Formats: sequence, structure tokens, C-alpha cells
Amino acid sequence: MSQKSTTGTAPGKIGAGGTRNPRLGIVGGGQLARMTALAAAPLGCEVVVLERTADCPAAGVAKQVITGNWNEPVALMQLAGLVDVVSLENEFVSADALEIMVRAGHRLHPGVKTLRLVQDKLVQKQTLAAAGLAVAEFAAVASPAELAEQGKRLGWPVVLKARRNGYDGKGNFTVRAEGEIAEAWQTLGGDRQELYVEAFCPYVSELAVIITRSADGSVAEYPVVETIQRNHICHVVKAPAAVRAEIAQAAARSAHRAIEAIDGVGSFGVEMFLLADGRVLINELAPRVHNSGHYTIEGCVCSQFENHVRAVLGWPLGSAALRAPAAVMVNLLGAGPGSGAPLGIERALTIPGGHVHVYGKATSSAGRKMGHVTALGASLAAAEATARQTAEAIQFGTKL
Amino acid sequence: MSQKSTTGTAPGKIGAGGTRNPRLGIVGGGQLARMTALAAAPLGCEVVVLERTADCPAAGVAKQVITGNWNEPVALMQLAGLVDVVSLENEFVSADALEIMVRAGHRLHPGVKTLRLVQDKLVQKQTLAAAGLAVAEFAAVASPAELAEQGKRLGWPVVLKARRNGYDGKGNFTVRAEGEIAEAWQTLGGDRQELYVEAFCPYVSELAVIITRSADGSVAEYPVVETIQRNHICHVVKAPAAVRAEIAQAAARSAHRAIEAIDGVGSFGVEMFLLADGRVLINELAPRVHNSGHYTIEGCVCSQFENHVRAVLGWPLGSAALRAPAAVMVNLLGAGPGSGAPLGIERALTIPGGHVHVYGKATSSAGRKMGHVTALGASLAAAEATARQTAEAIQFGTKL
Repeated sequence: MSQKSTTGTAPGKIGAGGTRNPRLGIVGGGQLARMTALAAAPLGCEVVVLERTADCPAAGVAKQVITGNWNEPVALMQLAGLVDVVSLENEFVSADALEIMVRAGHRLHPGVKTLRLVQDKLVQKQTLAAAGLAVAEFAAVASPAELAEQGKRLGWPVVLKARRNGYDGKGNFTVRAEGEIAEAWQTLGGDRQELYVEAFCPYVSELAVIITRSADGSVAEYPVVETIQRNHICHVVKAPAAVRAEIAQAAARSAHRAIEAIDGVGSFGVEMFLLADGRVLINELAPRVHNSGHYTIEGCVCSQFENHVRAVLGWPLGSAALRAPAAVMVNLLGAGPGSGAPLGIERALTIPGGHVHVYGKATSSAGRKMGHVTALGASLAAAEATARQTAEAIQFGTKL
Repeated sequence: MSQKSTTGTAPGKIGAGGTRNPRLGIVGGGQLARMTALAAAPLGCEVVVLERTADCPAAGVAKQVITGNWNEPVALMQLAGLVDVVSLENEFVSADALEIMVRAGHRLHPGVKTLRLVQDKLVQKQTLAAAGLAVAEFAAVASPAELAEQGKRLGWPVVLKARRNGYDGKGNFTVRAEGEIAEAWQTLGGDRQELYVEAFCPYVSELAVIITRSADGSVAEYPVVETIQRNHICHVVKAPAAVRAEIAQAAARSAHRAIEAIDGVGSFGVEMFLLADGRVLINELAPRVHNSGHYTIEGCVCSQFENHVRAVLGWPLGSAALRAPAAVMVNLLGAGPGSGAPLGIERALTIPGGHVHVYGKATSSAGRKMGHVTALGASLAAAEATARQTAEAIQFGTKL
């Protein structure tokens, strides 16, 4: 017998009746939830977030904050009971806990199936490969001996990765030769968590695409962008990527097909590697709005955040077209410990065309994402100059 | 001896030290406060509003709502105690109550002097005339007999107006001939409130300009727009106004000088009449963000809301330049009683380039401002077609 309840939200589209404005629940209350709430408001959509602490970035702009543990079904059910649909700002929420919520009749986008296909990176790679999409060669490894075997098969170096909970380079270890296997295995805790291995990918640049997909399969495909990482954290995003049209088309098509392969609903970040021979490999999917799409707030007709809200409410998607020839985003990372209030914002605001976004975090720490800057321009060079100049005027926390 | 206290907020700029993010208090929690809060968030600025009911449009996006009466010093002091600077979303707050708050050491922008010069429309007209700015001829009238005398002097028709608390045509009466004096005097309650009279202004169109001014005198001057009223309520705004360059320049210069004349700090709406001979008369000033500037959210590099926040925090102003050749805004008014949730929003969202803004009001009523739509375009005609098509898809409340 199915455990699916017939209570909870009614099927069909949300808010179509005009009886009251829609309510969106977001699991997590960081900057992604904050920017989603800012995009939801003009649509009349109220946002409730679930976060461990009430003093989170989204708190200042959300209708309500539920404090609780994301991974506890009781907290998720409390959130779901207040809203029409639940979404996520991070991919690490327990799929089992979410499934209990969904079985109780609550709506979740992206769904549990999608999350299960993404959360385990080995399963994610298998899913993409099965859909015929190009990825680096990969294999499960259950022991240092299996890693040694795969190293010989794939050729050194290889990248050892945790199957779950990795982000911003955490959970990855590049193993350059057989002699480094022991250290890699110990660093990633191979005896405590499942690992897999990938062929090292000698990419010439990193590309990314935001895809927003609706339950009916309609898609908003954002421009292919180039992302430049620093210490494995997204540092600069250039839109559009300065690549040949056929490469951009291939990247966009791959990204679109990847989100279809996981039956995604909402906005997704698709990270890719561009190889010297022009091939594009999918590196990783993020089942949520993504740092590589922050430029869309000013840069596109309808931002990744607004389209995420539209998609999860079952509303039509807006245009993902650029509003200027070029847009460049630069992240603002904490320089060290200190307040979440920026030093130098007054100087930054004197720079014409630099759009400053401060996330309202209580405290800064070294490398923490504290805000970002976006600038539009007639060329990538012009936009980048404005964005970098604006970003350089701002500092969070003490210098290291 | 001065009653000015040395306690309260320290002088100088807010947030410059980077110790914590700035906090802005807004008296009033309607759609203007809501859109201001949405613009404040990316700057890291937290917003607290003071409104009679907790269920106000700004509540869903503000850090905190204080419920209380705007005109009571105790409520204003409660708000001021939580924030670095207080601003207003409407011009009807008691200047006496605000003055008590300011004398206690709290910061207010625009200031009490500015509000006193604007709240009494006769004083406003006198101030503008004294600054050498063109306005329709006007005079105080203390009795029906004085009105008759002024009617003969100015020539019929004349417009009888309440000196205080008029908006959207309320508080005005066009007196076409001496025989209508009694009715006009009674309708506006001339025995209970002070009135004044203006020459009837046979304008060919209505223009408006948003001016944002900082305490140091620096100014962001938005494009001159044409406003089209329906039943005395702003219905359509076309940016830029289709007028000759010298008319636009004269209008912009007048608007700028008008805000200087009242020593305004923040964003202001300046409403003007364009006469057949090309002259521009100032009709009215609004000491706050204004409906004629809602198009600036998508239409300009820095919106009237963001620049208002920057000005009252003492931060540098952003560019008021248009981001497209044309922007058109159409108001969404309630068709009748009903919910504050729009019917037809799903259809509206299918129209490319129509930016929908729903104010999140609990209920609709006939003529109530429930939201607006903005569209950008390569021409006014293109932008207007998109904006009108989007607006026509949406309905609030039952049809009359």
C-alpha cells in the first residue's frame, strides 16, 4: 500500500486561482535563499526559510524563518506545512528526510529522485554517461588497491573524490602517482566514506551554464559562461564565455540534456571543462541556483532566481537572454575574521556601473563568500574592469 | 538653550567603519517601503518599518515591523532606536512628532524642514515661487468671498485645493464659475481646513522627474518622463518623455532646483505640467520615492529606491541613466474587492519582457494600487505594447 497521503497541497498549479499569493519554502537560509527571496517578492511570492540559526542572510528579507535541522523530517514538515512548495538552497539535505515530507503529500522541487541522482557524485556521473553525455572517465574504488589499479588504467594523475558532500574543492584529492595513494586515501577518509576516481582532466578553461527547467519540460537556457576559480572557489564569471559558437552551442545542449537526464525542476548550475581539442565534458551538476549565475540578476532579462521561483511554482519561465553584450561577476570573499559589513563600500559605490551585493552575514572569515559584484559592459574587458575595480574597493574582515 | 541632544546616533557617515551593516527605518510599510527594502538588501542594509498593522506589503521583506501610529512620537522613537536613520514612504506623517524624534538625536531624511515646506501645499508653492521656479498662479483663500475675488483675478475656471493631506486628486475641486463656489467650499470642508486656489492650468501633457539628492548636494537626475493619469491616479509612465530636448532640459533643471529649494535629501518625485507654448510649470513635489519612478527598477542603472537608500545613508549616488532606449510602466489597480493575489499572472508571465511587480497586499479594492508592470524596449511604442499587454492579462479582485 502506498504511503502517499491525499492530504497536503492540492495538485495543479499554484496561485492560479488568485485567492492568495503563493508561498515558497526554502531549506537553507544563506545567500542563495536570500537572493531567491528578493526575486520572489515582485511576483507576490512569500518566502519561508528553514535554517539552523535565525540570524541567517535570508532572515532579513524572508517572511518567516523556521529554526531547525534540515535533516530532521519534523523540521522539514514544519516548513512544508506553511508553504505551497519546498525548494533547496544546498544539495546536502537528507534525501531520506525529504522523502518522508513528500510522502506526507508535500510538494518538493527539485524532487527526491533528482536529488538522489545528484547527491552521490558517482551516481551522477553514471547517470550522465548513461544519457550519452561526455564526462571524464570514472570508476568506483573501494580500496587503495583498486585505486592503484584505476590509476594504471586511466593514467596518472587521477582525481580521488568523495561520493557525497564535497564542494568548492573539498572532498577532492589529485593523486599524481602510486606513491601518493596512501595519503590521498587517508585525507579523504576512504575507510569511513565511499570514494570514486576520475581521470585527470587537462582542461583549458571551465565553462558553466544555468538551466531552469519546468515540470512540463520547458527550459530557460542561460548563456554559456567562463568561470575562473581561485583556491577551488568561484572567483570570476564572464558572460558570455569567449568561445567559438559551436563550442557554446555544444555546451548549452549538453547542459540542457543533463538536467533532462535527472528530471530536474528549478534552476541548476552545470559546470563543465573545455578541452584543448574543443570537446566539452560535464564536471558537476548543482541542483540549485548557482554562483556561476549571480550575474543574471542584472545581466539577464529574467534572473536564475526569478526563473527558479517561476519553475517551482509551475509558472511560465522568463527570458534568459543577456541585457547587455557582456556581464562579469566577481565574488567578494572574506579577507579574515571580522564583521559581515564591508569596509570600503562607499568607495565602491562611486564606480559607475558596479552593482554591489552584500549578503548580510553576521561575521566574515577567510575565504567565506560575503557578497559579489556584477558589472555590465559593451565588452567582456570593459565589464571585467568595472567589476574588478568595484570588488577591489571592498574588504570583509581583517587582512590575513 | 538648544533642546538638541548630543546622544543618539553619532554624526558622520553610516556604515563607513565596517563594524556592522547599516539599518534604515521607514515610516510606513506599503509598496514604497517594500520596494525600498528590496533595493536596500543588496547593499547589506537592513530595513525596519513602522506601520499600523503587521500585515503590510513591506512586512514580508523587512527585517522587522514595528506596529504603531506614525503620528505618535513614542512609536517614532521606538523605530528610531532600532536604526541608524529614519525615512518616510508618505508625506503625511506629523512633522511635529518627527521633530521630537530628531531633537532626541535621531537622524531623519528628508528632514523636518523639508517636510514642512512640502506638506502645506501653499507653503510649497510659495517656496517654489520664491526660488524663481515657474508655477501656476496661486493665492490663499480664507472664505468663499475671497475665492470669488481670486476667480475674477485669475479667470475661471480655478482649482480650489486643500493645503494639506491631498493626494491622487483627493482634496482638489475645479470651480468652473462663481455659481460653483458654495459646492466647492463645502466639498473640501473650507470651514474645517485651510484651502488655497490656483489658476487652472491648460496643460498638453504631464511630466515628472525623480531627483535623488544627498546631504552634500550631489544629485542623481532621472530622465524626464510623461505620466498619464486615469481618475487622478498615475496609470502609465513613459520614459523618456517624447518632448523636445530643450523642454526636457528645462524640466530637469526645474526639478533639480525645486529639490534644492526645499533642501531635500533622498529620492523625490517632481510632477510638472507642459503647456502648449512649451513652458513647464511645477505642479507638486512628493518628498519620497514616487510612482512615476517605478520604471527605474529595471529601466535605470540604479533605481530611485537604491539611490534613496544611498542618499539617506550618506553613501555616493548611482547612475540614473536609462538601460534601454525606452521604458514604460503601467499600474495594476484593483478592479474591485477581493484578494491581493493576481488573477492571470501565469498568462502575464508568458509575455516576453514584461516585468511584473505584485505588492503583496492582503486585499484588493476598486482603484487600489496592487502592483505594476514595466517593460523596456527599443522604442516607447514597443515598450508600451509589452507593458500594456502584460498588465491587461492581470486582474486583482472582481470586476466592477
